[in-house]
Amino acid sequence: MPADVAGVGPGAADGLPPLVDHHCHGVLRYEPDLGTFAGYLTESDRPPATGTTFFDTQAGFAVRRWCPPLLGLPAHCPPDRYLARRRDLGPDETRRRLLRATGIGSYLLDTGLPGDLTGPAETAGDGGGTGYEVVRLETLAERTAAGARDAEELTDTLARAVREAARTAVAFKTVAAYRHGLALDPVPPAPGAVHSAVRSWMAAGTPRLTDPVLLRHLIELAVATGRPLQLHTGFGDPDLRLDHADPALLTGLVRATADTGTDLVLLHCYPYHRQAAYLASVFPHVYADIGLTLSHTGARAAAVLAEFLELAPFGKLLFSTDAYGLPELYVVGSALFRTALAAVLGDWTASGAWSADDARRVGAMIAADNARRVYGLPDD
Amino acid sequence: MPADVAGVGPGAADGLPPLVDHHCHGVLRYEPDLGTFAGYLTESDRPPATGTTFFDTQAGFAVRRWCPPLLGLPAHCPPDRYLARRRDLGPDETRRRLLRATGIGSYLLDTGLPGDLTGPAETAGDGGGTGYEVVRLETLAERTAAGARDAEELTDTLARAVREAARTAVAFKTVAAYRHGLALDPVPPAPGAVHSAVRSWMAAGTPRLTDPVLLRHLIELAVATGRPLQLHTGFGDPDLRLDHADPALLTGLVRATADTGTDLVLLHCYPYHRQAAYLASVFPHVYADIGLTLSHTGARAAAVLAEFLELAPFGKLLFSTDAYGLPELYVVGSALFRTALAAVLGDWTASGAWSADDARRVGAMIAADNARRVYGLPDD
Amino acid sequence: MPADVAGVGPGAADGLPPLVDHHCHGVLRYEPDLGTFAGYLTESDRPPATGTTFFDTQAGFAVRRWCPPLLGLPAHCPPDRYLARRRDLGPDETRRRLLRATGIGSYLLDTGLPGDLTGPAETAGDGGGTGYEVVRLETLAERTAAGARDAEELTDTLARAVREAARTAVAFKTVAAYRHGLALDPVPPAPGAVHSAVRSWMAAGTPRLTDPVLLRHLIELAVATGRPLQLHTGFGDPDLRLDHADPALLTGLVRATADTGTDLVLLHCYPYHRQAAYLASVFPHVYADIGLTLSHTGARAAAVLAEFLELAPFGKLLFSTDAYGLPELYVVGSALFRTALAAVLGDWTASGAWSADDARRVGAMIAADNARRVYGLPDD
Repeated sequence: MPADVAGVGPGAADGLPPLVDHHCHGVLRYEPDLGTFAGYLTESDRPPATGTTFFDTQAGFAVRRWCPPLLGLPAHCPPDRYLARRRDLGPDETRRRLLRATGIGSYLLDTGLPGDLTGPAETAGDGGGTGYEVVRLETLAERTAAGARDAEELTDTLARAVREAARTAVAFKTVAAYRHGLALDPVPPAPGAVHSAVRSWMAAGTPRLTDPVLLRHLIELAVATGRPLQLHTGFGDPDLRLDHADPALLTGLVRATADTGTDLVLLHCYPYHRQAAYLASVFPHVYADIGLTLSHTGARAAAVLAEFLELAPFGKLLFSTDAYGLPELYVVGSALFRTALAAVLGDWTASGAWSADDARRVGAMIAADNARRVYGLPDD
Repeated sequence: MPADVAGVGPGAADGLPPLVDHHCHGVLRYEPDLGTFAGYLTESDRPPATGTTFFDTQAGFAVRRWCPPLLGLPAHCPPDRYLARRRDLGPDETRRRLLRATGIGSYLLDTGLPGDLTGPAETAGDGGGTGYEVVRLETLAERTAAGARDAEELTDTLARAVREAARTAVAFKTVAAYRHGLALDPVPPAPGAVHSAVRSWMAAGTPRLTDPVLLRHLIELAVATGRPLQLHTGFGDPDLRLDHADPALLTGLVRATADTGTDLVLLHCYPYHRQAAYLASVFPHVYADIGLTLSHTGARAAAVLAEFLELAPFGKLLFSTDAYGLPELYVVGSALFRTALAAVLGDWTASGAWSADDARRVGAMIAADNARRVYGLPDD
Repeated sequence: MPADVAGVGPGAADGLPPLVDHHCHGVLRYEPDLGTFAGYLTESDRPPATGTTFFDTQAGFAVRRWCPPLLGLPAHCPPDRYLARRRDLGPDETRRRLLRATGIGSYLLDTGLPGDLTGPAETAGDGGGTGYEVVRLETLAERTAAGARDAEELTDTLARAVREAARTAVAFKTVAAYRHGLALDPVPPAPGAVHSAVRSWMAAGTPRLTDPVLLRHLIELAVATGRPLQLHTGFGDPDLRLDHADPALLTGLVRATADTGTDLVLLHCYPYHRQAAYLASVFPHVYADIGLTLSHTGARAAAVLAEFLELAPFGKLLFSTDAYGLPELYVVGSALFRTALAAVLGDWTASGAWSADDARRVGAMIAADNARRVYGLPDD
């Protein structure tokens, strides 16, 4: 392994246990062309501005830093050279080489995104780890609705679908932030309101679920199962209104679910990660996630991780990559996490602010132990 | 004094004058058990999540860094060992040893919190300094209401109570952020509205004051006295809705009080400290406070202090600890302030951005001079 | 040139091309006294608080760091000594000496501010560069209204004035953030609504334009010309309600203008620069500006620039000084940009996160290339 990526890989010298990637997605089974590849480096769903490229971003630079050496090329080589090498190896070999360099032992994979993507077991298998499924509520609801005959039936099958998913899924996820924003009613809707919303949804004929009553109802169904609920917060694709994704808007919902015994995991959070960390600090059942944020801030990952670590109790922060489409994003997410963690905790240890023992212990908590406890995962 | 805490203490080598802690609270007169002690390390009023402890936070690590050496133990020793040593010494001796190591010369103590706590003179006496009282408006109002017979009388006695408190108090404080949020009406309520709100409050039979009309009226009464008014802004316990505590929401009230001659001091501010610093930069009568924030961000104190120092004019920023319950929080608040200030100003001096003379001058301003001027304190 | 300002100046060793200052203002033609000078160091329009001075700010310290050596005085010399030297040289010689040390090659000057200020060609001439005009929509409208006889005519002349300005102006600018806030209607007002708003405005007899219908209409007129539109976002003078200037509030307007072919440039942005960078990352026609922010955060410029560079694609970030009134602010804006850029990119290159080639390329993009492309400027 080139010196450049020392510390990336299961036996890395950084002393971390195998990582638990508590929120990620499948990767493409086919070989992407340059434009498709670049499209996965951004949250934009539009073309780059004239005269610009999505490679000229922190995510793009991070891919060029960490991935070429894993395929036998120099770090920072040009995108087309990297893509050519990738084509030579083919998508399967590329995926295996990249995933095996991440040191991830457990993959909690959200299966709610479209595309010809690897599933949980398949992804984990390529990486030499174990796969688990995270069920996206809105996708589950939209699939369920496709086969429903009337509102009565759909209301029932929705509830059953969530209960059944909970038997195998390790967690649920909601993207209500995209569909409505996080200013959801703390009080779950009454059965009559649910039923009437289901009826309107069916009548509208558009599968995409955006009704805040139904979004809130799905959350209630998920919370009732006791499985941890992951909530998209903070930045994402341009469907989203950023200020409506501030996790502070969830305060009412957080209070309303405080005694259910179900944990809430705030995903991504940026640029409201300090708000998310605050919620994690005052509500026992709230956790915060660093995924997506580190990958997209690249060279700034240590600085942003340090901001999470201001208010977030160390038992409340969870590593993930939020990788999607490209195995490169698993590499980048794990490498940035490892180097950022080493930089931040190294500084604090060197200054005497933290002891070395505490730093090791906290590193393992964020990397794996917290997720293992929250999701009830077996020991590796 | 162990090398680890060099720089903490009245004769510290950092050249700062005796600190003015312009916002703090009493400490427990009795010896807390481990759970009670840990509860003061967080703003949460709930138990820690299963598998976690409040010691695993920046505040917890900061206590373990700075306090054990002051009681003859190694830095970062385990909490139970530290608590055992504390028990051996007893609460009085512990308090004296810890407070005397802070280098605080003036204690402006908010007496509005419940519990068997030391008062201003008692706290300051243990620390070898001078005590002053800050009167919390809502507590004053709730105490006043307890003895009132009718709304007419209560309206009058509230006004009188604030005026009388101003004769001895060095400042007022409002926690309207907790009770309603900071989106208060810029226009003070008319007498009729106040009277009717007082009547509703008495009729409700719940002492806790949450009516925005009365909260705003109390602010008006306080502003009329000319004493500086401290306003809770930013994070706090989970009563609070974080985004409703953004100090930018105070803009209307700030404008409405611009010509009263009364100063407003925005407490805590985090994570909206840049917003608070902005207000301090454009409104002559607005000041910002770093207390609570530095203690709870621990190893990140220098980074957060630096963010305050982006827009805040150097004559507008005030040191405090916001210590509450534990003398350890006085140690942590002052030690983190001293080390953060030295780190930040040291960097800027080393790079040539600031002159050493300016750095010394600005350090003294934030540590003591600004507070001395705002609160009209006598020279030490 | 003193070592202290190495790197400032057209032939600076930092390898940047001549800077394009894509948003700036004229400077005073006359010699300011100390109070007038100090007033330009702050966004406040009020006197400093008793016992404080506007020189005790990051902007004040930055001026004292960078400017005295350019006039033959030691860095950090006292303000009165600097002002005396300035008087000896006179305003013309001072302006020439300072502007020529900035390395700015193109000045895009907003001519919408009052005062005896240098114009685009005059300013650029003193600095040895080329001047362009940015037309402020609200000023243009208010000037147009001064001569109008009735609403019919004014509605027409407004539209014509914007179209005509577009023939010579390089861009438009709106200060709707000051006049109303950024929560503008995404949908442009219908002709009837515009007409009725124009009528109300004329009837009110106050020239200052604050009607959100007219502010939105002016934006629509400007967007229709195809010239880039600069929008004030983030901090500014106390007219502004800070939280109403969060660029995230523009999301609806951004979506509504996505297919017009017109670029939107978010000015200043602080403390919402991460939100601005997010918008620039997901919408092809959105750009973000660092001007004003670096000058007012001084010793923190590198830290703040790094925050911009988290999500902002490197082809989407633009240098400016937002200098106004004082040629010193051109010096400070460009010197802070150069040193901050060198510090940030130097760190990332040293750690291996970025290649040296990429760092050089990105530096030139932010300094000049991006603005050159967005505004369609000729090569120097």
